[in-house]
Amino acid sequence: MIIVLRPKSTDAQIEHVLERIHELGFKPHLSRGELRTIIGVIGDENKLQAEPFLAIPGVEQVLPILKPFKLASREFNPADTVVQVGRVRIGGGEMGMIAGPCAVESAAILDAIAGQVKAAGANLLRGGAFKPRTSPYSFQGLGEEGLKILRAAGQKHDMPVVTEVMDPRQVPLVQRYADMFQIGARNMQNFDLLKEIGQTRKPVLLKRGMSATVKDMLMSAEYILAEGNPNLVLCERGVRSFEDSTRNMLDLSAVPNVKGMSHLPIIVDPSHATGRPDLIPAMACAAVAAGADGVHIEVHSCPEKALSDGHQALLPKQYAELMDRLRRLAEVVGKKIS
Amino acid sequence: MIIVLRPKSTDAQIEHVLERIHELGFKPHLSRGELRTIIGVIGDENKLQAEPFLAIPGVEQVLPILKPFKLASREFNPADTVVQVGRVRIGGGEMGMIAGPCAVESAAILDAIAGQVKAAGANLLRGGAFKPRTSPYSFQGLGEEGLKILRAAGQKHDMPVVTEVMDPRQVPLVQRYADMFQIGARNMQNFDLLKEIGQTRKPVLLKRGMSATVKDMLMSAEYILAEGNPNLVLCERGVRSFEDSTRNMLDLSAVPNVKGMSHLPIIVDPSHATGRPDLIPAMACAAVAAGADGVHIEVHSCPEKALSDGHQALLPKQYAELMDRLRRLAEVVGKKIS
Amino acid sequence: MIIVLRPKSTDAQIEHVLERIHELGFKPHLSRGELRTIIGVIGDENKLQAEPFLAIPGVEQVLPILKPFKLASREFNPADTVVQVGRVRIGGGEMGMIAGPCAVESAAILDAIAGQVKAAGANLLRGGAFKPRTSPYSFQGLGEEGLKILRAAGQKHDMPVVTEVMDPRQVPLVQRYADMFQIGARNMQNFDLLKEIGQTRKPVLLKRGMSATVKDMLMSAEYILAEGNPNLVLCERGVRSFEDSTRNMLDLSAVPNVKGMSHLPIIVDPSHATGRPDLIPAMACAAVAAGADGVHIEVHSCPEKALSDGHQALLPKQYAELMDRLRRLAEVVGKKIS
Amino acid sequence: MIIVLRPKSTDAQIEHVLERIHELGFKPHLSRGELRTIIGVIGDENKLQAEPFLAIPGVEQVLPILKPFKLASREFNPADTVVQVGRVRIGGGEMGMIAGPCAVESAAILDAIAGQVKAAGANLLRGGAFKPRTSPYSFQGLGEEGLKILRAAGQKHDMPVVTEVMDPRQVPLVQRYADMFQIGARNMQNFDLLKEIGQTRKPVLLKRGMSATVKDMLMSAEYILAEGNPNLVLCERGVRSFEDSTRNMLDLSAVPNVKGMSHLPIIVDPSHATGRPDLIPAMACAAVAAGADGVHIEVHSCPEKALSDGHQALLPKQYAELMDRLRRLAEVVGKKIS
Repeated sequence: MIIVLRPKSTDAQIEHVLERIHELGFKPHLSRGELRTIIGVIGDENKLQAEPFLAIPGVEQVLPILKPFKLASREFNPADTVVQVGRVRIGGGEMGMIAGPCAVESAAILDAIAGQVKAAGANLLRGGAFKPRTSPYSFQGLGEEGLKILRAAGQKHDMPVVTEVMDPRQVPLVQRYADMFQIGARNMQNFDLLKEIGQTRKPVLLKRGMSATVKDMLMSAEYILAEGNPNLVLCERGVRSFEDSTRNMLDLSAVPNVKGMSHLPIIVDPSHATGRPDLIPAMACAAVAAGADGVHIEVHSCPEKALSDGHQALLPKQYAELMDRLRRLAEVVGKKIS
Repeated sequence: MIIVLRPKSTDAQIEHVLERIHELGFKPHLSRGELRTIIGVIGDENKLQAEPFLAIPGVEQVLPILKPFKLASREFNPADTVVQVGRVRIGGGEMGMIAGPCAVESAAILDAIAGQVKAAGANLLRGGAFKPRTSPYSFQGLGEEGLKILRAAGQKHDMPVVTEVMDPRQVPLVQRYADMFQIGARNMQNFDLLKEIGQTRKPVLLKRGMSATVKDMLMSAEYILAEGNPNLVLCERGVRSFEDSTRNMLDLSAVPNVKGMSHLPIIVDPSHATGRPDLIPAMACAAVAAGADGVHIEVHSCPEKALSDGHQALLPKQYAELMDRLRRLAEVVGKKIS
Repeated sequence: MIIVLRPKSTDAQIEHVLERIHELGFKPHLSRGELRTIIGVIGDENKLQAEPFLAIPGVEQVLPILKPFKLASREFNPADTVVQVGRVRIGGGEMGMIAGPCAVESAAILDAIAGQVKAAGANLLRGGAFKPRTSPYSFQGLGEEGLKILRAAGQKHDMPVVTEVMDPRQVPLVQRYADMFQIGARNMQNFDLLKEIGQTRKPVLLKRGMSATVKDMLMSAEYILAEGNPNLVLCERGVRSFEDSTRNMLDLSAVPNVKGMSHLPIIVDPSHATGRPDLIPAMACAAVAAGADGVHIEVHSCPEKALSDGHQALLPKQYAELMDRLRRLAEVVGKKIS
Repeated sequence: MIIVLRPKSTDAQIEHVLERIHELGFKPHLSRGELRTIIGVIGDENKLQAEPFLAIPGVEQVLPILKPFKLASREFNPADTVVQVGRVRIGGGEMGMIAGPCAVESAAILDAIAGQVKAAGANLLRGGAFKPRTSPYSFQGLGEEGLKILRAAGQKHDMPVVTEVMDPRQVPLVQRYADMFQIGARNMQNFDLLKEIGQTRKPVLLKRGMSATVKDMLMSAEYILAEGNPNLVLCERGVRSFEDSTRNMLDLSAVPNVKGMSHLPIIVDPSHATGRPDLIPAMACAAVAAGADGVHIEVHSCPEKALSDGHQALLPKQYAELMDRLRRLAEVVGKKIS
């Protein structure tokens, strides 16, 4: 950590900063420049907080040198992590192709969709039983009934299932039915939920928050890893921006960016990011070319009758065509969609 | 709701949209223009969802006409709501002046701060016992011990206390000690928490999410109101932006904006918004001049030794000077800081 | 255009709106709903402005139905536009691969880089002679001397050259040396510059402004097209966001988004978007997979000695490796890098 | 400047960085920590660029210590600058109250508005003769005719006039008629325009760009100051954000933020920021309370017939009521509206 002092900081102020550094068990390293005095703080930065120093009179800036996450970092684990969900492996060249409807609506609808996406090459089935909806008057999901339907469809079509959990109290219930937890964008910093899921050993799909930086996402990952659950897959799904013709702005640079900083796999969800079926295929292609470890796509056999977010779903036929192209793109970048 | 069709939509497509509208129990109103065909949908828009229509081939845009919230709207309740917390009233010209440290650290520190902010004119005491921290390695709050300390300080200094609740499981515990729940920015769309708190009748301070629009905030308010809890105060605390010299961007226009759309009181938190003590006083003054129903400020007697976010706290002396100015500004805009 | 009236608008207010519509030569179409009265305005919306209606008392919202651009729209010109720059064609399946240093620094350096990027498959040479720099103290470009060096390098290596023009007064000068004008992000809404360039017939590369929506970009394109210059290529180069680990946020969904709304070709610049050489290759791959009509990449033989923005340049060797991969990706999506 | 090396940087890499620092005429200061090696660079940071160092292999981060602007900085000039426009003084406790229509439309309309805003207490008259419009089909201003009308109204009502200049070629023309140049948000980084205006000595109102940070704005100010024109007033007018119920997001914290970093006066424009007359008065009040050196408000006697942006104008009567309140708020914060 580097502490930069204001131009006219007094000797007493400098002395005070040095004392605080010693008090906290670190070693200061003073350097008086022409225009600014700076103090390097030597020791385990993970135990240091910038805040207390910023509050000392005479301090202008505090510049952290190290990244604030540890277990999630590439330095901690140089090799790519591969997360196993049932027989499916995500990471290290293998792709998690997640597909299914936004919400579980009925056994018949889900069964039909599951069969079609499986045939097209999807290897994980998604479907929401607990739905985070902006409006309290919107369909909130079927709850446990939905979980049962999802599990049955997964077993019939031999696909592990992933579903969202929104409340720490739901964790034991969802754990019984799901092969992979999903933590949605709105809950990326629901720290109690992160801790609860960190205490299980079930795979987790952690979606990026709508205004989370890549570092924020890795800090939330750190919460889960620190509790002992290493089976973590990240998901870029777009962030809030001023652009008003798409639902969110898909930040595909998050894929190589995460891969540089972390060993964790990262997949991309172009459905929620764009909210527009006409843009989803191009963005799915771009995600694979960018090096993503999988793609998460909403598919519905009749989007106009879907109970939630049908307008961001592909038809099964569109999904099958897209998968064809994704397979060929994956090959070019050295990946494999099985 | 207005449905706009694509330029070359076919008669069959138009017919299909009309049928769907009838099926859903609404009345369509077709209007063929030179360049576009549009369909008005007549009936209770609260029961309509834009999404299913967007998914119909031939549909270009769906334009909602009504706001998606109801109980929170000014139309539903034209008079300003006044929320009572203990003897303190927030709204309708009376101001909630909330002050205190970021986190409850010890009885002695809190007691000292409480005495000073009370003397300066604060009427509600804040202090976190459960802290949402970006890093799992940061101080997470004292838990129930912190709640006890907070309650004791509030009683001694005769101030109702407000404290954050992060997890639906904590609601009964926090309810025993607090006079007002705080829902933090990261939990503004933690819908299970909103519902749980909506089922109590205790006053709530709902903070705007970091990437929430004003309408999103009112939709979250709607969750709480729909469960039956009318004692709701909103809080503007800054949103994420590209500006890198402040922690967040304080959107003061949210104050008159909310007041136009809703009857709920709204206060402003310049501490979290700016993260810079040098900017807090000016932003607190601006908030009062903009018509806010209160100001939420972090105060610490020794910010540099605070266990969390000390760098955004004012000293008790600075707070007292500021309160003086706020009182005079409140008078100009027809409000009263008691 | 749809005009929505406030819930309690009076008959006099409604009458007043109807009169104004007639005055402006349009036909109103009144529809009184249960909760809102709405008025459709029939006629050529391009001649209508939303603003005057918003200012009428009783008007709540004005919803435009048509897009505000015309010549740039896909409806106006359903086929893909192909822009010819020298012998290079951009659009309609053919790719503009633009490469070169950020700034022209010397004949020797540029000659070396031009030879290398040409060998790797670039077909257009870039280099700035007039540089828009945030600081007045930074290198501002070599001016006409730089243009001469650029032209000579282009001729020697048989590549058309593209260079930025920042000031309407420079247009005649730059026109003498360049094969394609570049309008930078900071000048996307420099309307006098757009008009001046619209009066030439030389190809233009128009970069998206840092806070421009896709529609804003198409409106700026409309300025150039309306002056009579149809030789226009758009460029996505990232927008401002809260993410602090990349220079800008690359919005790749702009590629299919523009292609849906417009007939104009669009290329992608991952160098300025990310500002990080470690992310450029993945983003270039993603751009091609997303359907871009070209990629714009900064290449420098010694980035650390470059006079501007060296840190976002690839080495010639890295560029050659990347081009190899781009060629194979282009093939998968049905494009050709010659 | 602090250079942070990657964890496993080699001795050769470190040596290479040290050499480059020496080559550039600076003195390096090496410090090997447990986890990172860092190098301080001692000397005039204004002559240093971060970019070349970022491009050296082994370099992880480059942290500038000093602000990149000099003449605009508070350190360079500790006292508040007061800018004189005719007899009006802006800064140092005196307020520039700018009012008038968005565009100059006719002598009669402008004369009426000028008389009314003058009576209400405005001391500077605004009106656009060259209008930057998103659409090429919108009213573009009356040009020189508009300048003449503006000048005549200013003389008749004894108010200096301020008007926008968009093109360096217009500077001599506008200079003949205006008392103060306005540089609009879209031209904040039109560096050729900044330089041209920097070469005059006429006062300038520089508006913040829609995606400019406060530091970017001060860098643009630096361009004008560096050319020799010290008569500079900044203007906060809102930035782009995801909030969709206001036109832009007014960043009032820019007022104290600029005042901390710079000696230049700063005024606030709530009209363009909000685009909503119902929010303008509250935001004008907030601006004054935040310490702004003036307020810029659009006023039109018949907003619904205005040729541009009428919907963001106050009526003269509303303006007069607002001025009354602003006067009393200014007094509380120690300022004077004459």
